[in-house]
Parts: sequence; structure tokens; C-alpha cells
Amino acid sequence: MAEITASTVRELRERTGIGMMACKKALQETDGDLDRAVDYLRGQGMAAVEKRSSRDALEGLVTSYIHPGNRLGVLVEVNCETDFVARTDDFQQFAKDVAMHIAAEQPTAVDRQSLDPQLIEHERSIYLEQAKNEGRPENIAEKIVSGRLEKFYQQTCLMDQAFVKDPNQSIEGFVTQLTARIGEKISISRFSCFRLGERD
Amino acid sequence: MAEITASTVRELRERTGIGMMACKKALQETDGDLDRAVDYLRGQGMAAVEKRSSRDALEGLVTSYIHPGNRLGVLVEVNCETDFVARTDDFQQFAKDVAMHIAAEQPTAVDRQSLDPQLIEHERSIYLEQAKNEGRPENIAEKIVSGRLEKFYQQTCLMDQAFVKDPNQSIEGFVTQLTARIGEKISISRFSCFRLGERD
Repeated sequence: MAEITASTVRELRERTGIGMMACKKALQETDGDLDRAVDYLRGQGMAAVEKRSSRDALEGLVTSYIHPGNRLGVLVEVNCETDFVARTDDFQQFAKDVAMHIAAEQPTAVDRQSLDPQLIEHERSIYLEQAKNEGRPENIAEKIVSGRLEKFYQQTCLMDQAFVKDPNQSIEGFVTQLTARIGEKISISRFSCFRLGERD
Repeated sequence: MAEITASTVRELRERTGIGMMACKKALQETDGDLDRAVDYLRGQGMAAVEKRSSRDALEGLVTSYIHPGNRLGVLVEVNCETDFVARTDDFQQFAKDVAMHIAAEQPTAVDRQSLDPQLIEHERSIYLEQAKNEGRPENIAEKIVSGRLEKFYQQTCLMDQAFVKDPNQSIEGFVTQLTARIGEKISISRFSCFRLGERD
């Protein structure tokens, strides 16, 4: 039988709002598996549908940019550490700039880590095929593939893109600069970009 | 060898902008598989990265609702058939109402069809467990499960939700009513809802 730690019980209590003894029993019944313990409590009629979990108490802003004509719109969440910074003009301008940049450049992901690894593999195989068809020797081909993947990241990943308001720096550079100026960790956590009639 | 129809060739030409003979050859090399033919042409260095495909020439609006305080925001696309209707006050008010409704009720999907079938199965199994634990006989249990699933849809699916501005009708009813009044097919195709710090 899995050992049920106090911290696991506490986490289950936080997720469900159910008392300690019931949480402990649920964890014992499900070998300490939190997700299954939630289901177990729900099956007992004790817990309601889980609300989506909230992360660390991040601050920041949710903002949007709707291009005139209403055929293109962006929703973005940018984060900082304190509500104080979130209210500054500097940070609010940053959020606006990022939303407008996304509308202009239409990235598909925040960063490389959030791209589907299968998609990257797929691109890589196509670049390799291209290099072969161009008659490049194998050691050169690898370099060409890397170069084209870099270019692919710059087209698809927000953090890798050249910032439309200052193309000399990437969005990542822009975020780093702002972090240094403000003295708080600044990040872009997610965005949606809708173009009328377009589908993924 | 798969037969390559004229319509498949035409579709590949539309997706890649490449000439007919090259498209035909690509389809022959890939047994008429459109996706693989695109990759083949890219491998030959002939086609660029595909743009996301656009659907039927739908009209409509992309709009947003940002709740005061910038901790909650919604982006939504609503569709109609003509640009003329998209510009009417009636339709623009509809788009605004839907965005505000989503912010208030936070559905997770547009309709039942867009819910993950595994999620539905998971909910069903929990409701069945609940009914068993309540000591209900099997024939009654099925009815209870159906009823609770209906309630789940009303909580999670936009089209099933009671419209916040007029709780006597569902969003679906509201859309149907508008369709009848305007005389064009009206639909809500997608939305995003971001609450600061919250993750799926």
C-alpha cells in the first residue's frame, strides 16, 4: 500500500474542499493517486466537478487587440509578479505591444517548447529531403537542416520572432529588457489569434 | 496505383500554388494522398510552408470582451453569410452579448460535439458510481446518469447554457431566433477565455 503523505492529503483537500479524513481514505483507496482520488470522492458524491486549477499566484494582465474591421483578433495573457507592476503604464503598454505583434506576425506557439515535437520532426524530415534533392553532402545537409529549422522557429514561435515595433530585437530580447528595467520576472504565458474563417 | 482525379489535382494546386503537371506527379508518387503530396512538393523545394487553410468563405466578426481589471478576457468568432449582415448593429450586438456571456459563464466548449469523448465517458462513469453508491437500482441509475450528463452539458457547452441576458432561453435558442430574424445562418464557431493565472 502506498504511503499517504500529509502534503498529498493537503493537496487533495485544496482541490476538493473535502475534510481530512475523507481525503486520506480516498487516497488510500486509490494508492495515493491524486486524480483518481478526486474521481473517487466524486463517485462518493462528496466532491463537485473540479474547477480548472489555478497556478502559482501570478499577477499580470489579460488584454486583446481587435484589428479594425473585426476580421482578426488576439487575446493574450502577460504575467509579472505583483499587482503593482501590472498596473504600471510600462507593463500595460507591453501587453498592448505584444497583442499587436501577434496580430501582425501570427505565431502559432509561445516558444519552441510548446510546439508539438511531432511537427518539428516532420519539418526536419522535409528539410532533409530538400537538402538531399539539392545534392548536398551529408555533413553539409545537417547544417542546412538546422538553419532552416531556426528559420521555421522564427516564423512560428512568438519568442523567436523579430519584434514588429523594433525588428532589431526578438520578442524574447524585448521581454528580457523589460524584466531588467522593471526588476520583476515578466513573461507571456498564452495567446489566441483568430482570423475570420480560418482554421488550424 | 491510385487513380488521380482532376479534383484532387485541383485541390493540391489550390493548397500549394504549384502547376498542374507537378501536382499530378506528386499525387502519383504518394498514391493520391493530399497531405503527403504537399510534403513531397515541399521536399522537392517547390512548395512553401502551408498557410493554415481557410474554410468556406464565411463572413462574420471576431470580437473580444475584457472584464474591467484585465484579469479575465474572451475572444470569440461569430459567423454569418454576408458582410452586409456582419455590419448590422443587430449582429454586432449579438457578438458582444456572446463574448460577455462566455466571460460570465465560462463554458469549455462550443457544443457537445466539440467535447472530448473521453471526458464524457469519464463523467458518465463517475455518475454511474455515484448512482450505485446512492443504492439506486440499475434501471433508475441509467436515468440518473443521463440527467447528470445533461446538467454537465449545460455547465460546459456554450450552446447548452442558459443565456445570461435572458435565462429563459439557451444560447442555442438565442442563435436560432437571430437566424430566423436575420434570415441568414448564424453560428458561433470558436472562442477562447483566459482568466489570469488559470490553466486548463
